[in-house]
Amino acid sequence: MSQRPLDILNESLETPVIVRLKGGRDFRGELQGYDVHLNLVLDKAEELKDGEAIKKFGTIVVRGDNVVYISP
Amino acid sequence: MSQRPLDILNESLETPVIVRLKGGRDFRGELQGYDVHLNLVLDKAEELKDGEAIKKFGTIVVRGDNVVYISP
Amino acid sequence: MSQRPLDILNESLETPVIVRLKGGRDFRGELQGYDVHLNLVLDKAEELKDGEAIKKFGTIVVRGDNVVYISP
Amino acid sequence: MSQRPLDILNESLETPVIVRLKGGRDFRGELQGYDVHLNLVLDKAEELKDGEAIKKFGTIVVRGDNVVYISP
Amino acid sequence: MSQRPLDILNESLETPVIVRLKGGRDFRGELQGYDVHLNLVLDKAEELKDGEAIKKFGTIVVRGDNVVYISP
Amino acid sequence: MSQRPLDILNESLETPVIVRLKGGRDFRGELQGYDVHLNLVLDKAEELKDGEAIKKFGTIVVRGDNVVYISP
Amino acid sequence: MSQRPLDILNESLETPVIVRLKGGRDFRGELQGYDVHLNLVLDKAEELKDGEAIKKFGTIVVRGDNVVYISP
Repeated sequence: MSQRPLDILNESLETPVIVRLKGGRDFRGELQGYDVHLNLVLDKAEELKDGEAIKKFGTIVVRGDNVVYISP
Repeated sequence: MSQRPLDILNESLETPVIVRLKGGRDFRGELQGYDVHLNLVLDKAEELKDGEAIKKFGTIVVRGDNVVYISP
Repeated sequence: MSQRPLDILNESLETPVIVRLKGGRDFRGELQGYDVHLNLVLDKAEELKDGEAIKKFGTIVVRGDNVVYISP
Repeated sequence: MSQRPLDILNESLETPVIVRLKGGRDFRGELQGYDVHLNLVLDKAEELKDGEAIKKFGTIVVRGDNVVYISP
Repeated sequence: MSQRPLDILNESLETPVIVRLKGGRDFRGELQGYDVHLNLVLDKAEELKDGEAIKKFGTIVVRGDNVVYISP
Repeated sequence: MSQRPLDILNESLETPVIVRLKGGRDFRGELQGYDVHLNLVLDKAEELKDGEAIKKFGTIVVRGDNVVYISP
Repeated sequence: MSQRPLDILNESLETPVIVRLKGGRDFRGELQGYDVHLNLVLDKAEELKDGEAIKKFGTIVVRGDNVVYISP
């Protein structure tokens, strides 16, 4: 059964995701929300470098046009 | 008989596709969904380098504006 | 008699076209479909370098925002 | 309970936020307003470099398309 | 009497134009059509370098977002 | 009390503002008008380098997509 | 009295303007027309380098997304 991109995001709410941004930065956090532009809310967010957390945040709002992919 | 871009994606659901992204990265996976922006859902996704899988994912949502082409 | 861009694409359906992408890559294939964003479906597609085919595809969907020009 | 990106911004009104812009600049200020494009109003704004304020502003309006993330 | 950009293109139908693209390439051809995005149809098109034709085409469809200016 | 980005611009009409553009150029002038794209009209405008005026204009219309921030 | 960006362009019809494009090129010409995208028609247009005309045109249509500012 096929699933549209926003269906996947909806199923991933409150679970951990990895977000790859343009320019190669990765963020990890719990997906707290999203909208049709793929603007994302990540909770307990961390910026990653080579898989290691280099910066920690409470909550962040990522603007969707920076996103390459989201991996639930 | 001609076929529009979204027809091709619809026919490719649940089958393997290669996706070339801007910047030259390739992803391979089973097309699980898409929308009109060419946002894509890939299942059993792999990032490729020179045709070799260098990173494996369960499911990823690729934001459409990164896509150069999709090859079913 | 003048012809709009989509008229030309419509007349070119099922015939070979060359597509120049941003960044300088060229693709050749049979135009199988298109939409208003200039998303294209190419059949028997080939990526070209200096006029030589360096990669062959069955069908590809090219996202329109990569296109510089289409030459029927 | 999930929260959409604009909900988070709404809750952050009148509180300090960090805004990361494309190109790597960070701004800190009190979020005074926003709109659907993620255009932002920051009050008592500061431009940061390595976490240090290098420039101070009263109020600034940041155009949303420059934003990578907003951290309340 | 003032004239809107599309008026000028309309008056230039079936006449030779020079089109400067982003990245500095110039094309010359007979304007055969256009649309509101400034997608263009050029007939007897030539790619120019330093004013010299380096490549000849029959007809090309240029995607409007590549255009810097059109000179009738 | 929160204020939306366009409210701030409205309050800043006829007063001096600094506008930072992408690429790092700064302009200073009296805000004479704006629209929803953040296209701006600056009167008695000056281009700044390191805080010094390097070029003077009467009035300029700045296209909004160049704007990083506006500081009233 | 405030004036919106398109008001300024309307008042500048049939008068000389300088247009700065992204990438730093300047054009000078008589503003013959415009539209809401800031696509412009310049008559007796000249491309400038260091304030000197390096290329002359009859009329050109400049696509608005290239514009940084317009100086009447």
